[in-house]
Amino acid sequence: MVEKLASAERDEALAKLPQWRHDAAENAITREFGFPDFSRAFAFMTQVALLAEKEGHHPDWSNSYSTVRISLSTHDAGGISAKDIALAGEIDRLLERAPA
Amino acid sequence: MVEKLASAERDEALAKLPQWRHDAAENAITREFGFPDFSRAFAFMTQVALLAEKEGHHPDWSNSYSTVRISLSTHDAGGISAKDIALAGEIDRLLERAPA
Repeated sequence: MVEKLASAERDEALAKLPQWRHDAAENAITREFGFPDFSRAFAFMTQVALLAEKEGHHPDWSNSYSTVRISLSTHDAGGISAKDIALAGEIDRLLERAPA
Repeated sequence: MVEKLASAERDEALAKLPQWRHDAAENAITREFGFPDFSRAFAFMTQVALLAEKEGHHPDWSNSYSTVRISLSTHDAGGISAKDIALAGEIDRLLERAPA
């Protein structure tokens, strides 16, 4: 059973994920992603879905045309856990990979 | 340019889509879909994404594990148009098709 991070641990972890922010109301970490169009937004969502299924940890997320908003929280732990931090880092890495 | 439906037209169309409801706050028609797990929820989302791209009309939608919520509105028309009604019907038909 994964445990919720203490506030200091969470803030330290978030310092390494500068594009994610702590949403206190949702008790989650969130990031919004913009793409040129729906096709590219959904292609990204497909990559995130495969990652989430592999990790057994799934986002709460929404899409409106070219915008994707992802919210990560560990419901079983009642807050943000190391699983959320790890998944956020992996999602960020998806976007770093440019075609060769 | 597609036009917003008058209230009576919208209500008549919605009578044929009993699982969709008019969300006055969102100025949209919405439906929530439940699946056995994330994999099946995302498979459905992929089908909806292909349909939306083909129709050139895209949903505002969210997913949380096995639940998908779809909201359809025609932003250019400032409300619900025939395009939303048509897409809602096509989305419903995706779920009617059982494997042979």
